Amino acid sequence: MRILMDEKGRKYIAHNEEFHTNFGFIKKEDIEKGMPGDVLKTHLGHKFKVLKANINDYIDLMERKCSIILPKDIGIIIATTGIGCGDKIIDAGTGAGATALHFGNVVGEKGAVYSYEIRKDFAEIAKRNIEGFGLENVHIKCKNILDGIDEENIDLIFLDLPKPWDVIENARSALKVGGYIATYTPYIEQMQILHKVLKKYEFTNVKTIECILREIEVKNKGTRPKTRAVGHTGYLTFARNL
Amino acid sequence: MRILMDEKGRKYIAHNEEFHTNFGFIKKEDIEKGMPGDVLKTHLGHKFKVLKANINDYIDLMERKCSIILPKDIGIIIATTGIGCGDKIIDAGTGAGATALHFGNVVGEKGAVYSYEIRKDFAEIAKRNIEGFGLENVHIKCKNILDGIDEENIDLIFLDLPKPWDVIENARSALKVGGYIATYTPYIEQMQILHKVLKKYEFTNVKTIECILREIEVKNKGTRPKTRAVGHTGYLTFARNL
Amino acid sequence: MRILMDEKGRKYIAHNEEFHTNFGFIKKEDIEKGMPGDVLKTHLGHKFKVLKANINDYIDLMERKCSIILPKDIGIIIATTGIGCGDKIIDAGTGAGATALHFGNVVGEKGAVYSYEIRKDFAEIAKRNIEGFGLENVHIKCKNILDGIDEENIDLIFLDLPKPWDVIENARSALKVGGYIATYTPYIEQMQILHKVLKKYEFTNVKTIECILREIEVKNKGTRPKTRAVGHTGYLTFARNL
Amino acid sequence: MRILMDEKGRKYIAHNEEFHTNFGFIKKEDIEKGMPGDVLKTHLGHKFKVLKANINDYIDLMERKCSIILPKDIGIIIATTGIGCGDKIIDAGTGAGATALHFGNVVGEKGAVYSYEIRKDFAEIAKRNIEGFGLENVHIKCKNILDGIDEENIDLIFLDLPKPWDVIENARSALKVGGYIATYTPYIEQMQILHKVLKKYEFTNVKTIECILREIEVKNKGTRPKTRAVGHTGYLTFARNL
Repeated sequence: MRILMDEKGRKYIAHNEEFHTNFGFIKKEDIEKGMPGDVLKTHLGHKFKVLKANINDYIDLMERKCSIILPKDIGIIIATTGIGCGDKIIDAGTGAGATALHFGNVVGEKGAVYSYEIRKDFAEIAKRNIEGFGLENVHIKCKNILDGIDEENIDLIFLDLPKPWDVIENARSALKVGGYIATYTPYIEQMQILHKVLKKYEFTNVKTIECILREIEVKNKGTRPKTRAVGHTGYLTFARNL
Repeated sequence: MRILMDEKGRKYIAHNEEFHTNFGFIKKEDIEKGMPGDVLKTHLGHKFKVLKANINDYIDLMERKCSIILPKDIGIIIATTGIGCGDKIIDAGTGAGATALHFGNVVGEKGAVYSYEIRKDFAEIAKRNIEGFGLENVHIKCKNILDGIDEENIDLIFLDLPKPWDVIENARSALKVGGYIATYTPYIEQMQILHKVLKKYEFTNVKTIECILREIEVKNKGTRPKTRAVGHTGYLTFARNL
Repeated sequence: MRILMDEKGRKYIAHNEEFHTNFGFIKKEDIEKGMPGDVLKTHLGHKFKVLKANINDYIDLMERKCSIILPKDIGIIIATTGIGCGDKIIDAGTGAGATALHFGNVVGEKGAVYSYEIRKDFAEIAKRNIEGFGLENVHIKCKNILDGIDEENIDLIFLDLPKPWDVIENARSALKVGGYIATYTPYIEQMQILHKVLKKYEFTNVKTIECILREIEVKNKGTRPKTRAVGHTGYLTFARNL
Repeated sequence: MRILMDEKGRKYIAHNEEFHTNFGFIKKEDIEKGMPGDVLKTHLGHKFKVLKANINDYIDLMERKCSIILPKDIGIIIATTGIGCGDKIIDAGTGAGATALHFGNVVGEKGAVYSYEIRKDFAEIAKRNIEGFGLENVHIKCKNILDGIDEENIDLIFLDLPKPWDVIENARSALKVGGYIATYTPYIEQMQILHKVLKKYEFTNVKTIECILREIEVKNKGTRPKTRAVGHTGYLTFARNL
């Protein structure tokens, strides 16, 4: 996946076709030949840098019709559950596929991500997004995860659903010994139900955290936390199948 | 890497030898045969469950003589820079190797982590820790990273050093186009210097964040954020080579 | 100070004159006779409740051309320095007078607030605001506090200035033994200079805090921290003349 | 209320009697004559400074057998409800009287604080604490506030009780039009019930906040938020009788 970046840092997906912008166009053959690091010029002389898109570049540019989980939360899920290259992950619901892309990026070819999405329109978008980035280890399934989990021996089941507790019983048998369940829920009530249900099904190490992210502004005027901030995203609840 | 977990959830590394505890011992052959999920009994009848250690289990049990970066911060580094399976990472200083282990776990066999540590004693511990977990893609180098970076075409250079700014100039040429530098620094002054130096060497998207983690307690008495918390760990500064 | 509140909770200052709204008008004599708790009707039958304005009602409605310090920060200043009824406070710069109003409200008739403002236009607005609320213990002085502090035996000197450190030397001699200096500064650099200067002039118990306020939303959908929040207001630095 | 402060900043209440310390003693007559700002010497030559205790000095030194609400939370209650000199406040439960002391300090002689405490032992301690500081406007009542509120025309009713919702119905009729109810509750469930009950009894502007306080350390090593912090104290819920 290559992208083009203009002089102001704005990014565009580079399809293998003539590239039209407000600053002129770039010829199809230039686009096709452009390697990461190359600088292409429009017919009006404006510069665009070719870059290999990383996962976040791509997520920023891809099609989506729903909100996505922020890197701060995805990162904490990855590092807290310790998933890595070669692991198998189940993800529900898929949404636009941002979380599945992150997971797919981490588990690599030897790993796999099975992502359940009940809405057909979202599943279609997610499939296109996964293909567009070129990941072959992420499998979008247009299926209600409540109807059964097809996979076994899973390292992490991640649930971004309104009622994740309905999945807990089935989740248990799909997980490896030592595997994790992780959920993302905006509301406190959801997290409270999760604690009860996770304990009922004998999950251990049940724990809920939230991450308050602050960006620090370093300007000539001075250094301070940004005055605008996201006040809350969601609670992350973790539990382990031990 | 297998571990043994007792009835209270305490974990122990399972070496291929007789296992002695306050609750009796387990025979060497039982240990050797134990597969993840198996329950072994001591001669006094106490149960120990065999588990495949994940990266965090192992880090909790491994030898270390210095503080380590918490999963919340490592996770945010991973997801913000978008590193994944197959990527190449430089890490300095190694310390006990916890961050290198996390990176090695994510980049997998096709990726590599080159971890620079100036102190011989730390480098020795880190080598043992990496070997103990069985990662072959993490290379501990007992070398001052200021004396030169040997690798090229790197996706992420992560610096956990008192003066990370000294490395920025060299870092630039070791990074891929689109690659990231990330630093972990406890103090605001460090982060301020980093912003200046990163801009001087034409890094873009320079950004500093901190993550305030709150754990939420769900008990019979009620739900609330834990009254004890870590007030601060470190600032994460990111910049990109574009 | 009376205000009128409409059926949607919007508030209006009640001057002793006919009151015109989009929902009809209320006669002058009705306004004049209206006591807190009374409900007045416009000629179109819309209801307006008469209220005694508290300090925050008034601040929300009064004239201002600059940002004001939030109640969270003013409250922490009040309770941390322990000021109360009868105390004497110096305040600089006045701005629209919101902080002076809060202080005046707390120290009462036996106390006094001397508020220094260098800009004539701000001082005029602040004077009108103080008079409008009917406080006689707040004295707006259109004077640069750097040119000297006229008062003595002060309990609290509060500085909301770009360079509060220039005032520290004079502040010391104006304060009672045991009196406090408090400053509000948006930037970390300001707070760092303050620490040095406060220690140079032998202030003790020098301490900087910031208050991150979260509002919790309790709705039918669920309970959660608001997703929009103020990320930062200012650092509060305290020091004591001991 | 005078206190003595030693060379290390430790404080002691100065009773009118001989003062014994590890650094020698100070004669009764010296203590009696000592005015704020004076420095007294023990017979061994160690210096103690005489200070007029402010409310926080006194609370730190007074007798208490229960936890107290921190200044950050008391301050936010004061400034958010806009209480000031001359106001009437009800407070329940009293505990050691710290909150009542703060309120008494703010409302002054023309105001009053009526503080309800069900436990006789706590009420006794609180009475001694209030007398010790010399406040005559704070009335400790050893009475269950559920048995009825004796006062009327109140500006603020503050509840620090396990089940503050039981008091809401009665609170309404004791409050002035425009008066506030404020509660301090550690748990989310308490705050949720409060929202329902406050709305049932037609309180308006129902709002819950929490204040996360961070102290910033400014040392030679550098500036950073303190690594140890209080993770949570309580939720403050406000509502207004309009």
